[in-house]
Amino acid sequence: MKKILVINGPNLNLLGEREPGIYGDDTYETLCSKIMDKAENMEIKCEIFQSNHEGAIIDKLHSARLSCDGVVLNAGAFTHYSYAVRDAIAAIRIPVVEVHISNVFARDEFRKNSVIAPVCKGSISGFGLASYFMAMDALVNYNDEI
Amino acid sequence: MKKILVINGPNLNLLGEREPGIYGDDTYETLCSKIMDKAENMEIKCEIFQSNHEGAIIDKLHSARLSCDGVVLNAGAFTHYSYAVRDAIAAIRIPVVEVHISNVFARDEFRKNSVIAPVCKGSISGFGLASYFMAMDALVNYNDEI
Amino acid sequence: MKKILVINGPNLNLLGEREPGIYGDDTYETLCSKIMDKAENMEIKCEIFQSNHEGAIIDKLHSARLSCDGVVLNAGAFTHYSYAVRDAIAAIRIPVVEVHISNVFARDEFRKNSVIAPVCKGSISGFGLASYFMAMDALVNYNDEI
Amino acid sequence: MKKILVINGPNLNLLGEREPGIYGDDTYETLCSKIMDKAENMEIKCEIFQSNHEGAIIDKLHSARLSCDGVVLNAGAFTHYSYAVRDAIAAIRIPVVEVHISNVFARDEFRKNSVIAPVCKGSISGFGLASYFMAMDALVNYNDEI
Amino acid sequence: MKKILVINGPNLNLLGEREPGIYGDDTYETLCSKIMDKAENMEIKCEIFQSNHEGAIIDKLHSARLSCDGVVLNAGAFTHYSYAVRDAIAAIRIPVVEVHISNVFARDEFRKNSVIAPVCKGSISGFGLASYFMAMDALVNYNDEI
Amino acid sequence: MKKILVINGPNLNLLGEREPGIYGDDTYETLCSKIMDKAENMEIKCEIFQSNHEGAIIDKLHSARLSCDGVVLNAGAFTHYSYAVRDAIAAIRIPVVEVHISNVFARDEFRKNSVIAPVCKGSISGFGLASYFMAMDALVNYNDEI
Amino acid sequence: MKKILVINGPNLNLLGEREPGIYGDDTYETLCSKIMDKAENMEIKCEIFQSNHEGAIIDKLHSARLSCDGVVLNAGAFTHYSYAVRDAIAAIRIPVVEVHISNVFARDEFRKNSVIAPVCKGSISGFGLASYFMAMDALVNYNDEI
Amino acid sequence: MKKILVINGPNLNLLGEREPGIYGDDTYETLCSKIMDKAENMEIKCEIFQSNHEGAIIDKLHSARLSCDGVVLNAGAFTHYSYAVRDAIAAIRIPVVEVHISNVFARDEFRKNSVIAPVCKGSISGFGLASYFMAMDALVNYNDEI
Amino acid sequence: MKKILVINGPNLNLLGEREPGIYGDDTYETLCSKIMDKAENMEIKCEIFQSNHEGAIIDKLHSARLSCDGVVLNAGAFTHYSYAVRDAIAAIRIPVVEVHISNVFARDEFRKNSVIAPVCKGSISGFGLASYFMAMDALVNYNDEI
Amino acid sequence: MKKILVINGPNLNLLGEREPGIYGDDTYETLCSKIMDKAENMEIKCEIFQSNHEGAIIDKLHSARLSCDGVVLNAGAFTHYSYAVRDAIAAIRIPVVEVHISNVFARDEFRKNSVIAPVCKGSISGFGLASYFMAMDALVNYNDEI
Amino acid sequence: MKKILVINGPNLNLLGEREPGIYGDDTYETLCSKIMDKAENMEIKCEIFQSNHEGAIIDKLHSARLSCDGVVLNAGAFTHYSYAVRDAIAAIRIPVVEVHISNVFARDEFRKNSVIAPVCKGSISGFGLASYFMAMDALVNYNDEI
Amino acid sequence: MKKILVINGPNLNLLGEREPGIYGDDTYETLCSKIMDKAENMEIKCEIFQSNHEGAIIDKLHSARLSCDGVVLNAGAFTHYSYAVRDAIAAIRIPVVEVHISNVFARDEFRKNSVIAPVCKGSISGFGLASYFMAMDALVNYNDEI
Repeated sequence: MKKILVINGPNLNLLGEREPGIYGDDTYETLCSKIMDKAENMEIKCEIFQSNHEGAIIDKLHSARLSCDGVVLNAGAFTHYSYAVRDAIAAIRIPVVEVHISNVFARDEFRKNSVIAPVCKGSISGFGLASYFMAMDALVNYNDEI
Repeated sequence: MKKILVINGPNLNLLGEREPGIYGDDTYETLCSKIMDKAENMEIKCEIFQSNHEGAIIDKLHSARLSCDGVVLNAGAFTHYSYAVRDAIAAIRIPVVEVHISNVFARDEFRKNSVIAPVCKGSISGFGLASYFMAMDALVNYNDEI
Repeated sequence: MKKILVINGPNLNLLGEREPGIYGDDTYETLCSKIMDKAENMEIKCEIFQSNHEGAIIDKLHSARLSCDGVVLNAGAFTHYSYAVRDAIAAIRIPVVEVHISNVFARDEFRKNSVIAPVCKGSISGFGLASYFMAMDALVNYNDEI
Repeated sequence: MKKILVINGPNLNLLGEREPGIYGDDTYETLCSKIMDKAENMEIKCEIFQSNHEGAIIDKLHSARLSCDGVVLNAGAFTHYSYAVRDAIAAIRIPVVEVHISNVFARDEFRKNSVIAPVCKGSISGFGLASYFMAMDALVNYNDEI
Repeated sequence: MKKILVINGPNLNLLGEREPGIYGDDTYETLCSKIMDKAENMEIKCEIFQSNHEGAIIDKLHSARLSCDGVVLNAGAFTHYSYAVRDAIAAIRIPVVEVHISNVFARDEFRKNSVIAPVCKGSISGFGLASYFMAMDALVNYNDEI
Repeated sequence: MKKILVINGPNLNLLGEREPGIYGDDTYETLCSKIMDKAENMEIKCEIFQSNHEGAIIDKLHSARLSCDGVVLNAGAFTHYSYAVRDAIAAIRIPVVEVHISNVFARDEFRKNSVIAPVCKGSISGFGLASYFMAMDALVNYNDEI
Repeated sequence: MKKILVINGPNLNLLGEREPGIYGDDTYETLCSKIMDKAENMEIKCEIFQSNHEGAIIDKLHSARLSCDGVVLNAGAFTHYSYAVRDAIAAIRIPVVEVHISNVFARDEFRKNSVIAPVCKGSISGFGLASYFMAMDALVNYNDEI
Repeated sequence: MKKILVINGPNLNLLGEREPGIYGDDTYETLCSKIMDKAENMEIKCEIFQSNHEGAIIDKLHSARLSCDGVVLNAGAFTHYSYAVRDAIAAIRIPVVEVHISNVFARDEFRKNSVIAPVCKGSISGFGLASYFMAMDALVNYNDEI
Repeated sequence: MKKILVINGPNLNLLGEREPGIYGDDTYETLCSKIMDKAENMEIKCEIFQSNHEGAIIDKLHSARLSCDGVVLNAGAFTHYSYAVRDAIAAIRIPVVEVHISNVFARDEFRKNSVIAPVCKGSISGFGLASYFMAMDALVNYNDEI
Repeated sequence: MKKILVINGPNLNLLGEREPGIYGDDTYETLCSKIMDKAENMEIKCEIFQSNHEGAIIDKLHSARLSCDGVVLNAGAFTHYSYAVRDAIAAIRIPVVEVHISNVFARDEFRKNSVIAPVCKGSISGFGLASYFMAMDALVNYNDEI
Repeated sequence: MKKILVINGPNLNLLGEREPGIYGDDTYETLCSKIMDKAENMEIKCEIFQSNHEGAIIDKLHSARLSCDGVVLNAGAFTHYSYAVRDAIAAIRIPVVEVHISNVFARDEFRKNSVIAPVCKGSISGFGLASYFMAMDALVNYNDEI
Repeated sequence: MKKILVINGPNLNLLGEREPGIYGDDTYETLCSKIMDKAENMEIKCEIFQSNHEGAIIDKLHSARLSCDGVVLNAGAFTHYSYAVRDAIAAIRIPVVEVHISNVFARDEFRKNSVIAPVCKGSISGFGLASYFMAMDALVNYNDEI
């Protein structure tokens, strides 16, 4: 049975409360339970991790390399400057999929640049909570098309 | 019954033959038949259109606004400079999802900039042929999460 | 009797329907009939041409050099990147006036740069449909001031 | 009866004498009398103001907000750096039309950038003295198209 | 017997008439007949194609991959922005040589950048009509030096 | 009888030994003898000069202005920064043709900029040793097309 | 008894009327009287000066060096380009505090750069009219912390 | 009774010892006790928090949204690159005031750019320890001017 | 008898008092009297004008075109942004020499760019008060070398 | 007896496993034991610290200022953006030497910029594990040459 | 008796022959003899040195530090990129004055940047041959004004 | 017995005399004798070469490829622009180590960019004369760690 790790970066814990015009009204708890439901439907194991600490995300990516088959990563604002997270992704051998709830290309100029995208398997942005489900599909169901 | 239009831009007709190290060995015909299979599974109508002409793609987007529920668009190299395609997307009201077979962020510098992304619903890149299937899922199945 | 050619570039055929907050509610048909009325008032011949194809606009500019006394050109998004249209303008000897319905300087950053302006006779932007009428006046009535 | 204010910025008082290859042979006096003739034809009131002082132009814009229906502004070189003039235009509620005698896009690189264009109603450049007449037409005759 | 395809991009059909100070007085017909004479002398087959449509040039490059031994390409202004033409060159396996009549490095700043040069076999610019003959020589006679 | 001077800049003396994947296996001696053979075939006089010293190349260009009919110049890395070599080319009246063995546009970013190209007659790059022969042809045989 | 000079730059005289969404509804007269009240409370002398003329502001800064203990300066748009005002601040020995009513970092890109900030004692922006009162406090009450 | 949270970012714990020419001789303990004295005078509650960990500062900002009326934030070097801290400020609804002890505009080039300023209520820099007191005043005493 | 006008821009009236480490200890009065002595020695007429107002300097340049044989211009900080002063220099026909007391290239980055230098006869910087005397020599004594 | 602290930043704990083509096959444990052997040979005390947390590295640098004679710092990806680590180095008085295993100048563009180099004693990169030993030599044995 | 060294950089030996529209018709020999005449008039010793070799100019600057009182340097194109010449000027203690015959600010963009100006005593450009005489005056006659 | 070549670029011959605040008081002779002592201790052969001529350094690098086991290169200012020296390093097969006496990252902006670093084995800067000794150690003693 495959195992997927979902990592959420800084400020995602405030989902639902934080700029709802951009991120929607669903709370972080709703996001988590929908991801777990989706995993159950897909018959895979799934772990969800959130941290506002760059180092904790790097540590988690490192440990995932031995215990998971793939990672869904919403790096939040770290997307735009954390070369340390980038190096962590490049250092492990399991596929990492970058996701964003909002369309990052339609917002501030600085959000157009992702320093992690070049070392991820692929990128998905703009589909709301579904961005996560699509990433899970990509890692599990669409594997032989990739 | 929903109808999705899949538009493929310049040079995608050479798929399978063109830089297979980057785009894979599947031919354009294989891509088309897999998309049609996927559509059948999803119980939706689907039309596929390919052109190397920017104007033809704009014309197609215009006509889709009256006959389709959503567009999956792989704009090929037009992604990086065709503000005319961008304006066409912004001019119509149905959702357009940007897809790329390869991870465009891991290649030439100029491929990192998409002039159409800001006006698309969302973007998907790097999942091979599956990028198309994920876009179809997004338009049809994950609609209430978006 | 003088003859003026009015060329409209990509997406202008959707006028009225396309982003009305920016381009207004008048349809493309209304624009055309108002231009023809204006021409009649000015006692000049007038032809209107629209295309979403860059090549078709270049072909039209070429043929205009033998049959028209001046061109009113709303190049749409081609304004910002089509060096091929620029070269076509520079290649012919009749005056070409650049027009824009909206104030292009008050919108996206990329719209501030016109690659065709340096080879046009002059530029007019921001006056709605009147931008066209003013260009027609410039070519016909204000000719000895220019 | 409508009233239009025409403001001419630095060095325009030397018209006719200054770089005639670019600005033509007509003197500043000729420009003024042609503008007054045009106004008479249009049956509007018109005032012309020229200054080489940025502050005087700002003061004039301020006072125009209470006494005029629109402003035709050739800001000369202030066009390219005077954010103070820009703020003055944004601060008043009457429409301001930017005009230039020469095609500013076909000259020095620095002349391609107008810091005032984004807050003007519209821009006209390259039509010689007629640029002024066209701006007057725009403010008075084409008003319901704008 | 080898076959070479010569492709001429936008505005080259106006050769002789267009900016003769830069491109010379020879007409496009003269260019074509000189190329055919040169081909006859070299004892090769030669086809000449001209279009102002980017898509038509891409289509032609695609079909050439099966029927020609090499391409001489004067992409005109597409040289400076058409990543779609670039991708077409990269997608086919026969050698493509970039040619320019004028010295593109001695003109406008934007003409210094060729987006197609990195995927061409080589580049030749500044030798007038001879640029074409040199490219033909390169593809046929100097082949084992390359 | 015409005389051509061939100047080779820094590091070309190591040809064959230096990065053969880029510059090929032919030694500098082979290059020289092939150039001399080509010259004999063309019935022209030819002198070859190589130096790693910028000043020596400038001195040689100066003296060539009185004794040669044209110069074939592979300036090596000086191509990218030596404004002094550029000024030397501009200072003399005989035509100078820029050549490069490799396709300089397909390598490091800095190699895309040639500071000497704007003052040369024309540029040839990417044809291996044949780049030199083509330049010799351009100076001698294709002279009335240029 | 200390004396503070408050200098207001271009367009601040239109306060209350000018873009009230950004600058608030208080008129310039209200600002002045609140500043004078604050000064009375602080038991200091205070002079307020407003001009739309860069030169007048420089002249005032010069004269303040002999008669005042500090300056509160809202340079308006001069903030972003007047190196002459900058030099005037650097030329005098009394402390100058930069103030802005709005948060200049949250508006147009050009407003993020202050050419006067490097030579001021300190900067305060975003606190509405209170920005002035805080600057007065800084110059008078918090002096030994600075 | 209002409650203000004062957050100090990386390296501020070394105040007094660290580059005293720039930051002054007062130790971090002195800063803290002066802030507490000020709070007592203002009759407000005040908590001071310092961390060299970006994540800890984000966590603290999150928790403050439920327990405090405003935040005084000296983000130290995080000011210049932490988009994660920026997002945390934007995510909460209480006002955050940016402060700096030194005049950040008069030092290294990189210190001129604050990525957090656009989402703060206002900014204060250059007033030594008083920058903190002024921020406290802004949040508590000058509230109806803001 | 020749007449030279010496124009001094903003803040030069504070010479001697203003940043003496950069501009020296001589007062503005000393500068003026040394210039007049120099003029007497050279047997020319000389007028000195100083203003902190950009418009006043433009007005003075305009009037000088009818009454003087040359201008020595220290534009102070206007050097770096006043395109209006640049246009005034270009508009008049008498030679203008740019002078600076300090070596502007050895100071702030922004001082390296002179927007007036391209339209001046020549530039002199770094020689203290002697920069003025050298400019006077250039206009009067070295005239046939220029 | 001298004491040296060796700090390793993010992802160095995966040495040997992480991109071995760049970083070599030696594991992090091997690196540590070789450093300790080297220290023993040099008769110095040595402590090694690794963390993926920026804050932890800053804390460690702070504490080192009281207990160590020098620091060898491989900041990993923090090298390229952590101004907080930079400030920590500047805040302490003991020498810090920057080391890199790989030649950071021969890799991604972003790795060419070190924000910590300007405040370090010196920099060493490209010598594999030996970079550490050389840094230790620099701090202990070559001290009077520095 | 003072001694001045005049150094002329690359291509100045072709003066009179080289681009006379820019540099004038006087030959290099004329320049030299006029400089020697000027020196005789000034009752100083003078040596003139010309080289197209950067290294030779550096060697000459080094030796001048022991034998001359000042240097007049026309570095030609080295002005724009030779940091080695810059370092040589900074390394010696005698004053070096930068001169240019033409107004370098009115020509190619790259000529606007002088890498040697920041370490020279002062700069003079645009006065033809007189630029040299003015530099000699500066070093000898105006010494106490500098 | 191994042989190391030490190459010193422009202006290093003035060591001790040249900007001693940056480069120290040791003369070039002292540097040379310390290097020879170090070599004797290491039981290797060592040759030292200095030149202010770029071409001479390239020639020396070329000849070293046949007679030496490694090169220690302080390229002085050539570091920052000599692509010709870069190509020479890339052209030879023996390892070259870049050294700098001062910390080049803590000085002028232009000194931060090394065009030779990407093709060197490694880089060492900031350790005074010891930079050379460390490079010698790297080439000889730490060879199997690299």
